[in-house]
Amino acid sequence: MASAHNLPIAPMREWNWTVTEKKAARRAFDLALSRELDAVLREAKERAARITDADGLWELEGWLGQKRRRIDRDFDYRYSILPQVFASLLRAGRLTEEELHGLDPDKLDAIRYMLSW
Amino acid sequence: MASAHNLPIAPMREWNWTVTEKKAARRAFDLALSRELDAVLREAKERAARITDADGLWELEGWLGQKRRRIDRDFDYRYSILPQVFASLLRAGRLTEEELHGLDPDKLDAIRYMLSW
Repeated sequence: MASAHNLPIAPMREWNWTVTEKKAARRAFDLALSRELDAVLREAKERAARITDADGLWELEGWLGQKRRRIDRDFDYRYSILPQVFASLLRAGRLTEEELHGLDPDKLDAIRYMLSW
Repeated sequence: MASAHNLPIAPMREWNWTVTEKKAARRAFDLALSRELDAVLREAKERAARITDADGLWELEGWLGQKRRRIDRDFDYRYSILPQVFASLLRAGRLTEEELHGLDPDKLDAIRYMLSW
């Protein structure tokens, strides 16, 4: 049964990932993660430098916890959901489509399609 | 029944606190708390400035949580335990004996005695 959007027919969790694709996916994922961590690092330093009282300290603690939990949730390297992860990283500006070079065109189409949701 | 150490005879939780003593206690307590918070604030800024990677960020988060919980625990303004609180603040260098001026001499003796434990 063909998909209405020319998406791969099998459910995403059953898609095949070649060794080449896995390498490309890992490279893109790690690049996005390092960008995310750099951004948090930079903002944490700026926030810490601006703190003037105890309330500011505990706010920083809460903010760091929130960032840590969100990163744990968003950077989930399971092939069964990786296209969605890439779609949200593109949406968040942590990756460009060019940086997904190496993935199968069908997967790129699926990612683009998810981006349009 | 007299104490072997010339301590007030009643259990500490039954000691009487005059209005003057309460004011003196509150002033000393607030002074110690503001010193503690200043020290944490200063160290947090130094730690944040030194961070170079994500591990350092989550360490800072953990360190802040630990400090917050310790301050909540140590700065406990209940008259029933306040002499112990003052003894530990003296021990930690957050107060001097002179700053407890205004407390009843018997309470000061009790605090000194606890310090010698």
